[in-house]
Amino acid sequence: MKNPMKKSIQFFLVFIVALSANLTFSISATAADPLASWNNGPAKKAILEFVATVTDKNGKDYVKPADRIATFDNDGTLWVEYPMYTQALFAFDRVKALASQHPEWKSQQPFKGVLEGDMKAVGATGMKGLMEIVMATHSGMTAAEFEQEVSNWLATTKQSRFKRPYTELVYQPQLELLAYLRANGFKTFIVSGGGIAFMRPISEKTYGIPPEQVIGSSIVAEFQVKDGKPELVRMPKINFINDKAGKPVGIYQHIGRRPILAFGNSDSDMQMIEYTMGGKGRRLGLFVHHTDGDREYAYDRKSHVGTLDKALDQADANGWVIVDMKKDWKEVFSARD
Amino acid sequence: MKNPMKKSIQFFLVFIVALSANLTFSISATAADPLASWNNGPAKKAILEFVATVTDKNGKDYVKPADRIATFDNDGTLWVEYPMYTQALFAFDRVKALASQHPEWKSQQPFKGVLEGDMKAVGATGMKGLMEIVMATHSGMTAAEFEQEVSNWLATTKQSRFKRPYTELVYQPQLELLAYLRANGFKTFIVSGGGIAFMRPISEKTYGIPPEQVIGSSIVAEFQVKDGKPELVRMPKINFINDKAGKPVGIYQHIGRRPILAFGNSDSDMQMIEYTMGGKGRRLGLFVHHTDGDREYAYDRKSHVGTLDKALDQADANGWVIVDMKKDWKEVFSARD
Repeated sequence: MKNPMKKSIQFFLVFIVALSANLTFSISATAADPLASWNNGPAKKAILEFVATVTDKNGKDYVKPADRIATFDNDGTLWVEYPMYTQALFAFDRVKALASQHPEWKSQQPFKGVLEGDMKAVGATGMKGLMEIVMATHSGMTAAEFEQEVSNWLATTKQSRFKRPYTELVYQPQLELLAYLRANGFKTFIVSGGGIAFMRPISEKTYGIPPEQVIGSSIVAEFQVKDGKPELVRMPKINFINDKAGKPVGIYQHIGRRPILAFGNSDSDMQMIEYTMGGKGRRLGLFVHHTDGDREYAYDRKSHVGTLDKALDQADANGWVIVDMKKDWKEVFSARD
Repeated sequence: MKNPMKKSIQFFLVFIVALSANLTFSISATAADPLASWNNGPAKKAILEFVATVTDKNGKDYVKPADRIATFDNDGTLWVEYPMYTQALFAFDRVKALASQHPEWKSQQPFKGVLEGDMKAVGATGMKGLMEIVMATHSGMTAAEFEQEVSNWLATTKQSRFKRPYTELVYQPQLELLAYLRANGFKTFIVSGGGIAFMRPISEKTYGIPPEQVIGSSIVAEFQVKDGKPELVRMPKINFINDKAGKPVGIYQHIGRRPILAFGNSDSDMQMIEYTMGGKGRRLGLFVHHTDGDREYAYDRKSHVGTLDKALDQADANGWVIVDMKKDWKEVFSARD
């Protein structure tokens, strides 16, 4: 084996073995169903056909990778939102945690209602009361401090019915869809009415979506140098509400391109879907319809969260795909580890 | 050659040749200086040493790829800003183009000044006048229409001294730095005081930075359905000024992570650099110092654009790297094709 030619051949043989192993792996990965938790039905068919079409270099509907933008609502589309939005529960828990510093809350709505578990009284304060709760619990600290609060809460709090952390109550079919889209050159974004800073701490680990691809509602932040340390401080003032007609605006300000696929679950997502479908070429708009009271929840037209009403009526006429959770999803949540 | 074993060998030989060509290419690419247009000096050394340190998996200052966020100012940092910001020239040209629809502008400042080339009169109207020009020229159309206006103007307008389009007056050393950072797992962002919608149409092609990684000042946009088509319409109202203390705020809202490297060229970039340097672990903050009147421009403390004054005074004490264009850059612009 002193012959240099032989050495070269030996080197290349090792290389080939490594290469073959890689090839085998990627072939088997491709052969497996990338949407294994989706039942064969019209929704899965529409997704597979859409992705095949826009990635077909020789087809007239080809979309170059840079323009393959896919946007997903979060609450009710990627994770459970019933019986109450996760972030609202976080805010209520923070009211309780901060109550000792605010003795006045004992007699002041909406805080009194939160402390006494009287949700009717909280609800009676309307949007104004809700905003007071958000401001009292989401501002007055640095960005890093708030991120820590959110991370701690999500790591230690369990959902009322399923007794699992919220980050485990994400929909397995959607995790597969996100991964499938990314494997096909899509860039995936969250576009939520919820707080941008509430989702970012967990978006990468939970969904494979980095913080900079999360768009949501926000409060004003201010740059301050505190004790010689430059920090961002969260102020008690709304910056932007990323909901309904705000969603296309948030997409424009953050992404600057019109998505070609958008996925929501409520009437609040209609404008995002309309905006997405309104561009040239092939587009896909989808809504999760919560039809599965056994495995998750069943709600739509008259729900207090994630109302799906007008969008159900208009779906057919607009070519929107309604994903029936009960029929279209083989699994809802990932199996417990 | 009918022996199947021989066929396999033949196949693998073809593979090996292809592979070797690839290997040779990547080895020579690695061996070549990734910052060839930077002279050997303290700035280049600081950059190379920083990147080597934060990417060294065994070192105590290792930064995982997801946190390798690098932010760059645009005007004067990535492309020429002298003698006037490109976007201001665009706005002035649009005033001239729209003048026939606004006969009142003939007698009304700051428009009168723009139409008569009387920049002193324009300047006398101050920030209020400037905002009037921005609103008159940057709003009242859809997002797509504005993008088209910007693209057309940048494709057809040449800079006064160099007689080249602005997209060719980008700094070659910075293009190399952006590519070098990305090759080392960094995600590169533009964080500019200029308009977000003005830079996005050219950011990908010019800098390899996709629109969603461009952060800048913005005006309010509104979702409207016009003639059955869902569009974003640009409104005559400021949304956010991404300058000075606004830069860290823009970074927080868009990226949600503190950069580990930031590059600016004026006092307006100080807060971005302070914020970047204020995080834990190794950080790098840099300023371009325009010292090269022969190849570009020489200006700093008393300039009407891109004033670099306080940052020069404070650089040493804060460990900021001042990049001396004349000394540190072997080339300023890429060679003409």
